Amino acid sequence: MKKGLLNLITDVPGVKIGHVTLYENMNDKDSICTGVTAILPHSKNSFLHKVPAASFVLNGFGKTVGLIQLEELGLMESPIMLTNTFSVGAVLEGTLSYMLEQNPTIGDSTSSLNLVVGECNDSYLNSMRLLAVRPQHAIEALQAATSGSFEQGAVGAGKGMICYGVKGGIGSSSRIAQHEDLAFHVGVLTLSNFGRAQECRISNWDQDEVDKPDGSVIIVVATDAPVDARQLKRLAKRAAIGLGRTGTHIHNGSGDIVIAFSNANTVAHESNTPYETHPVLRDDHPLMNELFQAVIEATEEAIYQSIRHAETTTGRLGRVIEKGIFQ
Amino acid sequence: MKKGLLNLITDVPGVKIGHVTLYENMNDKDSICTGVTAILPHSKNSFLHKVPAASFVLNGFGKTVGLIQLEELGLMESPIMLTNTFSVGAVLEGTLSYMLEQNPTIGDSTSSLNLVVGECNDSYLNSMRLLAVRPQHAIEALQAATSGSFEQGAVGAGKGMICYGVKGGIGSSSRIAQHEDLAFHVGVLTLSNFGRAQECRISNWDQDEVDKPDGSVIIVVATDAPVDARQLKRLAKRAAIGLGRTGTHIHNGSGDIVIAFSNANTVAHESNTPYETHPVLRDDHPLMNELFQAVIEATEEAIYQSIRHAETTTGRLGRVIEKGIFQ
Amino acid sequence: MKKGLLNLITDVPGVKIGHVTLYENMNDKDSICTGVTAILPHSKNSFLHKVPAASFVLNGFGKTVGLIQLEELGLMESPIMLTNTFSVGAVLEGTLSYMLEQNPTIGDSTSSLNLVVGECNDSYLNSMRLLAVRPQHAIEALQAATSGSFEQGAVGAGKGMICYGVKGGIGSSSRIAQHEDLAFHVGVLTLSNFGRAQECRISNWDQDEVDKPDGSVIIVVATDAPVDARQLKRLAKRAAIGLGRTGTHIHNGSGDIVIAFSNANTVAHESNTPYETHPVLRDDHPLMNELFQAVIEATEEAIYQSIRHAETTTGRLGRVIEKGIFQ
Amino acid sequence: MKKGLLNLITDVPGVKIGHVTLYENMNDKDSICTGVTAILPHSKNSFLHKVPAASFVLNGFGKTVGLIQLEELGLMESPIMLTNTFSVGAVLEGTLSYMLEQNPTIGDSTSSLNLVVGECNDSYLNSMRLLAVRPQHAIEALQAATSGSFEQGAVGAGKGMICYGVKGGIGSSSRIAQHEDLAFHVGVLTLSNFGRAQECRISNWDQDEVDKPDGSVIIVVATDAPVDARQLKRLAKRAAIGLGRTGTHIHNGSGDIVIAFSNANTVAHESNTPYETHPVLRDDHPLMNELFQAVIEATEEAIYQSIRHAETTTGRLGRVIEKGIFQ
Repeated sequence: MKKGLLNLITDVPGVKIGHVTLYENMNDKDSICTGVTAILPHSKNSFLHKVPAASFVLNGFGKTVGLIQLEELGLMESPIMLTNTFSVGAVLEGTLSYMLEQNPTIGDSTSSLNLVVGECNDSYLNSMRLLAVRPQHAIEALQAATSGSFEQGAVGAGKGMICYGVKGGIGSSSRIAQHEDLAFHVGVLTLSNFGRAQECRISNWDQDEVDKPDGSVIIVVATDAPVDARQLKRLAKRAAIGLGRTGTHIHNGSGDIVIAFSNANTVAHESNTPYETHPVLRDDHPLMNELFQAVIEATEEAIYQSIRHAETTTGRLGRVIEKGIFQ
Repeated sequence: MKKGLLNLITDVPGVKIGHVTLYENMNDKDSICTGVTAILPHSKNSFLHKVPAASFVLNGFGKTVGLIQLEELGLMESPIMLTNTFSVGAVLEGTLSYMLEQNPTIGDSTSSLNLVVGECNDSYLNSMRLLAVRPQHAIEALQAATSGSFEQGAVGAGKGMICYGVKGGIGSSSRIAQHEDLAFHVGVLTLSNFGRAQECRISNWDQDEVDKPDGSVIIVVATDAPVDARQLKRLAKRAAIGLGRTGTHIHNGSGDIVIAFSNANTVAHESNTPYETHPVLRDDHPLMNELFQAVIEATEEAIYQSIRHAETTTGRLGRVIEKGIFQ
Repeated sequence: MKKGLLNLITDVPGVKIGHVTLYENMNDKDSICTGVTAILPHSKNSFLHKVPAASFVLNGFGKTVGLIQLEELGLMESPIMLTNTFSVGAVLEGTLSYMLEQNPTIGDSTSSLNLVVGECNDSYLNSMRLLAVRPQHAIEALQAATSGSFEQGAVGAGKGMICYGVKGGIGSSSRIAQHEDLAFHVGVLTLSNFGRAQECRISNWDQDEVDKPDGSVIIVVATDAPVDARQLKRLAKRAAIGLGRTGTHIHNGSGDIVIAFSNANTVAHESNTPYETHPVLRDDHPLMNELFQAVIEATEEAIYQSIRHAETTTGRLGRVIEKGIFQ
Repeated sequence: MKKGLLNLITDVPGVKIGHVTLYENMNDKDSICTGVTAILPHSKNSFLHKVPAASFVLNGFGKTVGLIQLEELGLMESPIMLTNTFSVGAVLEGTLSYMLEQNPTIGDSTSSLNLVVGECNDSYLNSMRLLAVRPQHAIEALQAATSGSFEQGAVGAGKGMICYGVKGGIGSSSRIAQHEDLAFHVGVLTLSNFGRAQECRISNWDQDEVDKPDGSVIIVVATDAPVDARQLKRLAKRAAIGLGRTGTHIHNGSGDIVIAFSNANTVAHESNTPYETHPVLRDDHPLMNELFQAVIEATEEAIYQSIRHAETTTGRLGRVIEKGIFQ
């Protein structure tokens, strides 16, 4: 399929990405090698302009926050934040502060706020117990978010991640789903931190097995196709298929979680009318299968991109994770 | 059905409850009227001795954390923490610190840790935007946890909660499920923050409707019956039935979430044997229906207890929520 | 809440109900005491004009057919058929024949067809192993379907059912959900075959316990409110609350299954346009909570109606199930 | 991974497969080109000796019967039957008769019976509207079931199926999951009826696109590893990964459904003891990941086997589907 202009999730108009990377080898024992990545669904206030969203849990050994309300209402009302496993609390706090400042009525005269934070365990390279990520880092990641190009690999939440035995982290890719005169973007961003070297389908490296817990992957799917929450769950399931194509066996200890949203039709926080009336793509329209294919292809490539862009990184205890070189 | 000795969730042997209450009317505008409640599944280290657990989301307008992994593995490896909606991050951080101190290998040589935090929105009485709950409060609630009697009503996470238009908060009840010579405890604790005055089935109050967002309720079901995660989900669904009997219409904006665990069979974090071998109650054994009934009855009563024990409370903007007097 | 004109599911404009009742006491041992009930979502061809639909399984000890596709697409494309547990196959065959005759292209040039059949176990009164229901009976129930009044109690699929120890079967009720100038119908039909005498909250009978397996209940919720599949699942969950209010403990062996549909916005089987554009009620509109209340109230009353209308019935082995007399 | 002795699902000790194939080109217009396949979980009475089981719906455009109860109780109490979409009713009836004859108390003095029937749409080659499969064919498939070798390809339920534009049908494969001295079988059987020619990852055919509705696939996973229902759902999800590796985009109109069971620990229909006590593999045991890999590999290969073994077949309207020749 045709790729988007930048082959990035930001090819979906409005989507913005911001990173904060924390990296310091403190001593022989401890290193800070972690970060935060923010995914904004569009350029507007995400609380006031909610987006249809859904999730799919392929393997639930993970601590992602915010999916219960997202599933109930079929809406996401915040950015998606990514970080390491132990920093979910700090990132929740920072993101909350950021949103409260933007929205003075939340928790006062209007309702509460549902935040979405995904995580992977970077404790092989990062001294995760030091809780280096603070609320302010989440705010900075949000403030850093921009459209267009962004860094991939060992950056942001991906700084300390490991994928198929080599350096992983943030990867992204996009596709154009097209049928006749209809065309929409599908963009994927992954936080890749899973798999063993010998599983990878296109690698030619032969790393020694790292003695680390099974990893995880967070997959974010964005589209500007007018699909609703039920259909976004269908898209989310296809991301699992794309992930599977890279070779992983979806290990027991892996939190493999997909979050999908569409920014085609936003839903206002408040409205004077009782109804929402939006065009929604028919499930039997040929474009739906194109969207499915786009998600699969973009997910598969995003994972490879997370490896391709990640440089060799040294972390705690002097551990080194090498760059993966594809054939 | 027969009640437990104290008619509290702590009638389930090993279960402990701890509260930290924050209450200060600062000025005409702001009040701190909130807190944290900790539910420990047993007396041992909850990470090293995991308990079978399950959840049921009756209405998902809520921000409870930790259910994804709990559902995947059918195990809970931490206490359940309750607080207000905006303090989930702080409570996560505090609980994490507490658990890391108890378990020096988590995030280092062993895997990560899944925490469970439930919340309700207490912003009618509590200046929730001030983020008064700090990580230390979670630690204090955990340290305060004891077996036996504990305070109900406007205490701990329940300090600022409102139920059926009157003061709500923490309530608890227990039952003995018995068949022939088999008998087990079922205990329920609720954080009650939902419903409108006229919905309550046994009230005789006639409060003016409080202009507040739809509330929520977190229901924790504990048992020492030997049931597995699948069966605990069945129990969790029955808690929804008990809740419904109090009269609520399960409003759109309510996060009505049940978490159920059994401490009959714990699962060690690590083991030298490949298998877990535990007796599990047959689904068709008559005791199963007794357990179902026990959950329904204890949930219904726990909600009434949360009202019965809660005193009239003054919160932000001088707002007063009256004690509900039953007939 | 205000009831609909007839206090029946057929108060939802377009909904039609048809029964076929089979009743014959053949000898001392065997009786045919069963039937089929058809629920048509509207007056048009249900395959060509699909309706948004969802389901909720409160307790899954049941054999209802057709929910997988209904959940995936959020659409129902057939009537809902009710019968006894062993007649699901025959009713599938009969309903298929009926639909194939109406739609010559199904299974030829167009796609396949998803049928929905619910069941309860009537083997206490009915010699279920005789498989008395034949495909033709399903066709006759469909042909008998009419708007307006219909028989309740021991009729159609309800002929052999038992509820709270007395005669159960088909019950129905309806409510008007209203907010300002918006008003919609909610109708419920139940096939009631569950519960023990002492559980019923409003009974004054004291039947000896019937030595029969735990029963089941199928609850059909219909509305003309413009709600989508996700929202219909929310309505379906409230039906479980209404059921719970009648007193049942939701026994292990009970198949307690809710199917909800809206005929406000139908979706054409084929379309020249890529999009469906329908008004959908906002979740935060006050009418949503009214719909929830309507479902709860109508479900509770429908179950009582199924008892109220059912006459004392003699079935196999000379067994007699008495009429339940309410206070 | 090492394959089982026959590389068939019957490498899992006790599993039996039986086919009935119906094939007749009646005239220029109509052909009977369909059948029934029975999968028996073990050699004993499947109602009296139930097996732990779970399902996963990857894409729910399908009509599989029996998953609600299977999910609730985590048990399967019947064979799995496969057939065409319109024959589900007939196969239900036949399987019911077969089971009733084996079990004289079902529907009389004991409870009801949950049957499992999966289906795919074979209407491109088979005149599906003729309803050629009768209840007796299901009985014959059950009677024909044997251990050891069985026919693959265009046989049984697979007679009229199409996969990736060439002839599909029944395929099977198996693996040995091994860790140190522990070794168990994983066997997969697929009814393959999905995909477009250009999607297939290892094909070198270039078929014209068949103008047919999106197809489906039923994947049955069997193992003799001692895993429970929750874990079998984990295995079922890995089957979806294996399916995805063959290239399909998981089309909108496809019913892609996985059913997984273990015959290591059976559960008696009735018991004098209140508990079931079975060894269950720990989720963190290395063998679990081996089982995941085994499911992925066996599923992928089973699909290719369904093509490899299927011969060119002529069906209704003189349509011919060619054998797919792999490189």
